[in-house]
Amino acid sequence: MIGLSDRVIISSNGKSWFVRPSDGKLGTDLGLVDLEQIVGKEPGDVICTHSGRELSIRLPRSTDFFEYAKRSTAPMLPRDIGLVIGLTGMNKHDHVLDAGTGSGISAIFFAGVAAHVTSYERRAESAEQARLTVSDAGIQNLEIISGDILKETRMYDVVHLDLGLTKEHVIHAHSVLKPGGYLACYTPFFEQMALAFDSAKNLFVECSSYECIMRDMDRGERGTRPSTRVCHSGYITIMRK
Amino acid sequence: MIGLSDRVIISSNGKSWFVRPSDGKLGTDLGLVDLEQIVGKEPGDVICTHSGRELSIRLPRSTDFFEYAKRSTAPMLPRDIGLVIGLTGMNKHDHVLDAGTGSGISAIFFAGVAAHVTSYERRAESAEQARLTVSDAGIQNLEIISGDILKETRMYDVVHLDLGLTKEHVIHAHSVLKPGGYLACYTPFFEQMALAFDSAKNLFVECSSYECIMRDMDRGERGTRPSTRVCHSGYITIMRK
Amino acid sequence: MIGLSDRVIISSNGKSWFVRPSDGKLGTDLGLVDLEQIVGKEPGDVICTHSGRELSIRLPRSTDFFEYAKRSTAPMLPRDIGLVIGLTGMNKHDHVLDAGTGSGISAIFFAGVAAHVTSYERRAESAEQARLTVSDAGIQNLEIISGDILKETRMYDVVHLDLGLTKEHVIHAHSVLKPGGYLACYTPFFEQMALAFDSAKNLFVECSSYECIMRDMDRGERGTRPSTRVCHSGYITIMRK
Amino acid sequence: MIGLSDRVIISSNGKSWFVRPSDGKLGTDLGLVDLEQIVGKEPGDVICTHSGRELSIRLPRSTDFFEYAKRSTAPMLPRDIGLVIGLTGMNKHDHVLDAGTGSGISAIFFAGVAAHVTSYERRAESAEQARLTVSDAGIQNLEIISGDILKETRMYDVVHLDLGLTKEHVIHAHSVLKPGGYLACYTPFFEQMALAFDSAKNLFVECSSYECIMRDMDRGERGTRPSTRVCHSGYITIMRK
Repeated sequence: MIGLSDRVIISSNGKSWFVRPSDGKLGTDLGLVDLEQIVGKEPGDVICTHSGRELSIRLPRSTDFFEYAKRSTAPMLPRDIGLVIGLTGMNKHDHVLDAGTGSGISAIFFAGVAAHVTSYERRAESAEQARLTVSDAGIQNLEIISGDILKETRMYDVVHLDLGLTKEHVIHAHSVLKPGGYLACYTPFFEQMALAFDSAKNLFVECSSYECIMRDMDRGERGTRPSTRVCHSGYITIMRK
Repeated sequence: MIGLSDRVIISSNGKSWFVRPSDGKLGTDLGLVDLEQIVGKEPGDVICTHSGRELSIRLPRSTDFFEYAKRSTAPMLPRDIGLVIGLTGMNKHDHVLDAGTGSGISAIFFAGVAAHVTSYERRAESAEQARLTVSDAGIQNLEIISGDILKETRMYDVVHLDLGLTKEHVIHAHSVLKPGGYLACYTPFFEQMALAFDSAKNLFVECSSYECIMRDMDRGERGTRPSTRVCHSGYITIMRK
Repeated sequence: MIGLSDRVIISSNGKSWFVRPSDGKLGTDLGLVDLEQIVGKEPGDVICTHSGRELSIRLPRSTDFFEYAKRSTAPMLPRDIGLVIGLTGMNKHDHVLDAGTGSGISAIFFAGVAAHVTSYERRAESAEQARLTVSDAGIQNLEIISGDILKETRMYDVVHLDLGLTKEHVIHAHSVLKPGGYLACYTPFFEQMALAFDSAKNLFVECSSYECIMRDMDRGERGTRPSTRVCHSGYITIMRK
Repeated sequence: MIGLSDRVIISSNGKSWFVRPSDGKLGTDLGLVDLEQIVGKEPGDVICTHSGRELSIRLPRSTDFFEYAKRSTAPMLPRDIGLVIGLTGMNKHDHVLDAGTGSGISAIFFAGVAAHVTSYERRAESAEQARLTVSDAGIQNLEIISGDILKETRMYDVVHLDLGLTKEHVIHAHSVLKPGGYLACYTPFFEQMALAFDSAKNLFVECSSYECIMRDMDRGERGTRPSTRVCHSGYITIMRK
């Protein structure tokens, strides 16, 4: 049952709005919507605009938060977050350590998968903004700590680092990983990828660095071709203890 | 507490063995191991070989099943499974429908993430083999059905298809998806990707086809370069209802 | 010795101007340049602006024509033209047949390599514009014919097609190729590549289709990474008689 | 008119033999061939095996030398040689400086395009072997010098380096390039690419490093997909004076 301050998405024919019942009235091209009528509804239920047009209600998924959440920095793309999940085999039994939180998008995806996520962010303001996004999302198993990840001493199944990487970060991650656990480092630049790899080589049992070139295939009337838009995002280094 | 028939991994210095306590004795280059001593232990505990060498115990992750499970066909790679998870935002609240099961690897990854996975496999023998792998893995939330996915009528958050795709499959998937849910089709060949895209275009709210070229970066004494090994696996088409 | 209507490039410290001595005076941020003084000079000679700043003279290369020539349509990129030259082994003994001429850029590159190039363009206006560019470039061994390439009956070492490809074009190219000669088809879309391949398969001795993903490596203060700009241009199919 | 020691290719139905008339008799699955009958023939002429099967004669192209020439080291691929030609606009007016010669394949391609090629090889044996290949190919405008390219002082339009690159090589190349001329460095590893780029940045007017990922498209009965074979060869850095 949806509460007054829960985030929901209402949509009709491919158009969507990211709202809270407490937001009051929403003007759309389908007519005015009284959002308070959402309170007490279930996902899948339907509400109407003043002019009688139907809108269906659903709960947002991680991919919606990627689309709608406030961003303090450029977040990792869902494709790269997915690669981290797939290559580490992240699952619902895992305790995951993450830094830096940034806009919180990666941590929100991980919290949708893992038992618990602890995410560190050094900039207090970014941490506070990410906490709002997380609370907005109704996510319970994600703790955002404003501080330095190097202070963390609890043990984890997966550590994910997307920050200004140093060798110390890799050594620290190793020290808080359970045997068989994974460290995943996302690094936009080659040199940081090399640093991750070199720091891990004699410490971890397995270490591989990857580049993923992902291309949207444009399929139009003239034919099909790979999009000429962005295809590089970053390098991912996966290390196993 | 580990039971007699649970799958565990015992390892030492980067060498690993995929065993069950009920397997009896295991000969290794570190000496003979009496596997029954694992019963009652916890992940992280240590056992010894007859010659006193220590081995640590851990539970297998999805990535280990990819490595060790019996395969009836070439399974999807963890990277592609991860892309499906990331691009659909798959999470612990999701009910996932999957076909064809094949070796069960994708379904095992999904079951590690989702609330429940239903996986269809038309070949009875493959289904039976995958059931053994799943039971071996101690996975409870994955049901493998020997039959045709087109018969399924329950509603799902995510549908994943890795089979000889037809337009009927795409239409059926749409009919069993909740609003906002995702269909992900993995197709090795261009023509199947085009079929998925064309079948979905006027049915789904969003539709994108991707090719992911993933390259292992070889970092040796002479320098760093992208591996010249496999870089194409398949196309992934993501459709949202 | 440079004549009044020859195209030259004058440059200083990385700034270049594409001029003709007959253009008269040129205003630059280095001062006014009297272009007529270039007449009678040799490439490598130096001229001065009114304020005494030196500019060196050189003849334009194909890459300069790519940069400066008038374009009726999007020309092939130098990288793709180079792939055609490399994969066909185009050389100074070759008679090359080309269509469609478009802006004439590909034909100008080929004319710099081959003994003679015949280039067909169906649109009379484009052909006329390309002829001006070619005459401007002082190129003698390139004939641009306004008409349909299917009418050509002379024999060639290399045929290059960058047009709305039909099966008839592939069959015709085979008929005008000497034994051991090459047909190269540049096609932006997958479907045209498939058409080229399928038309050639049982006709030519060798046939391969390629996609070339070329990436500019950005090397800045923060590090090195592949550019996120254009990486796909088209498919190239190489057929040998 | 073909002479006794000229290299030719005789072929029938997609099978080819790389021969010299002076080689005497050649046993093929089409019957025995008396090669001396080729003397005095023209490219395009036909000869017969003892059993009356026809074989057509043609002169080898650069691509044939890539296929058949003796190799001392792994030569650059025709695709990469083509990129160097396209990105430098190499043409028949150019004097090209090349090192190291290696098997001579790149130099042979360049000699097919340029007015003259000077190629340096430090290993005397490799230089001698390459000279044999070149003389075999009947190429007149390619001089192979056994020695260090850093000793060269004549001026060139294009310099191509495929060797253990040092900063000194880049500075030297700049000193022997005419204004507007190009240096192209082919380097298998990232670190050498970075060295080329950094050495050139403040010396040359333009500098770009590229990676080219080229993929053979496999088109079979089950469908079309990019080959999973080799796709990375090396990085190419193009610098303009």
